[in-house]
Amino acid sequence: MEKPKTTVRILEKISKANDVIAEENRSEFLARGFAVINLLGSPGCGKTTLIAATAARLRGRPIAVVEGDVAGSVDAEFLAGQGLPAIQINTGGGCHLDAGMIREAMRALAPADGSVVFIENVGNLICTAGYDLGEQIRVLALSTPEGDDKPHKYPGIFVGAEVLLITKSDVASYVGFDAQALRRRALSLNPGLVIFEVSAVKGDGMDAWCDWLAARVGEKKSCE
Amino acid sequence: MEKPKTTVRILEKISKANDVIAEENRSEFLARGFAVINLLGSPGCGKTTLIAATAARLRGRPIAVVEGDVAGSVDAEFLAGQGLPAIQINTGGGCHLDAGMIREAMRALAPADGSVVFIENVGNLICTAGYDLGEQIRVLALSTPEGDDKPHKYPGIFVGAEVLLITKSDVASYVGFDAQALRRRALSLNPGLVIFEVSAVKGDGMDAWCDWLAARVGEKKSCE
Repeated sequence: MEKPKTTVRILEKISKANDVIAEENRSEFLARGFAVINLLGSPGCGKTTLIAATAARLRGRPIAVVEGDVAGSVDAEFLAGQGLPAIQINTGGGCHLDAGMIREAMRALAPADGSVVFIENVGNLICTAGYDLGEQIRVLALSTPEGDDKPHKYPGIFVGAEVLLITKSDVASYVGFDAQALRRRALSLNPGLVIFEVSAVKGDGMDAWCDWLAARVGEKKSCE
Repeated sequence: MEKPKTTVRILEKISKANDVIAEENRSEFLARGFAVINLLGSPGCGKTTLIAATAARLRGRPIAVVEGDVAGSVDAEFLAGQGLPAIQINTGGGCHLDAGMIREAMRALAPADGSVVFIENVGNLICTAGYDLGEQIRVLALSTPEGDDKPHKYPGIFVGAEVLLITKSDVASYVGFDAQALRRRALSLNPGLVIFEVSAVKGDGMDAWCDWLAARVGEKKSCE
């Protein structure tokens, strides 16, 4: 292999304007008693299914969802069909949500005070990592078919997450996924990362994740 | 569900500067007899494995690879280990390759005249679609675990591709993937799209894709 001749471009990570709005969001969320979760992950990693399965296990508080996609509204429609208040943001080509979009969407969605609000970000392991939305908890979902080598390729998103959910654990054996290797690589970037392996479809690992989340958002006993 | 209150952000698709360099690249590639393929797809959709398996079947011409990643060089190292001349571009946080990066990388890689050159773009279904690199063929890889609903969510990348490779066809039955539904949705956006279903690991469908590619890049008989 030739030695890398790298052309380095540092992404303009966070605009000042976004940070200001994100802090305003966070203050408002706190005042309203919201627990807001920013869920990041690749296209097709199972974010929507995970939200539905998590919501079905969280019983103590009202739940609402903000869906982010470049186009379309299939995910918001699916979640609404599950009985969850949901609103769709279409970015129209944009590769991530920002704090201003969330401010508008939350005003339109108008969740009940005390709600747990899931924000499903646009499917993207890069651009989403640079935008604070004002959330309290940032969760990264990585599905087993994506492979255990992702931390080294997309370090920023692993560094910024509080929780890593290894999704689609039920197909790990079919796709040659090494969970221990992923854990080791992810923890080398972010030693405090909380990691769960889950299958939202089969239910494996969902209780452990849900118990953790319930405790994190201040529930005494909300998972069942 | 609340009616969508969309916050629309139109991505600045293509800078003039990128277009100018892309055209210069294309002219140079033509002059050197290169066939250059820009391979797009999500993180973990199997792009690197696909390149290795395709290269193993293309026998008529020299092959080289330009690897794009935010960080790291595991893919270029893997391909170099397969005997392929490979160079790694690290974008340092950037979410796509651009024509200027390719110009520099091709000068450093210096493929033999007449080479087939695969460019593995950064794993991203959004930002990569807006940047012409000067390639002759744009190929989108979408893996079955990502789901058959992706065309409606990421329409731009389907509209701009010449070929859609449905990768990881060997695990389709484990992940509930409907190939006919994907074909229908993709073709509704891009009626001329050429589609193959492949498993680079198992070999299924690789001959059909490879025969098409060999013909497209002007080989008489280069697949075996």
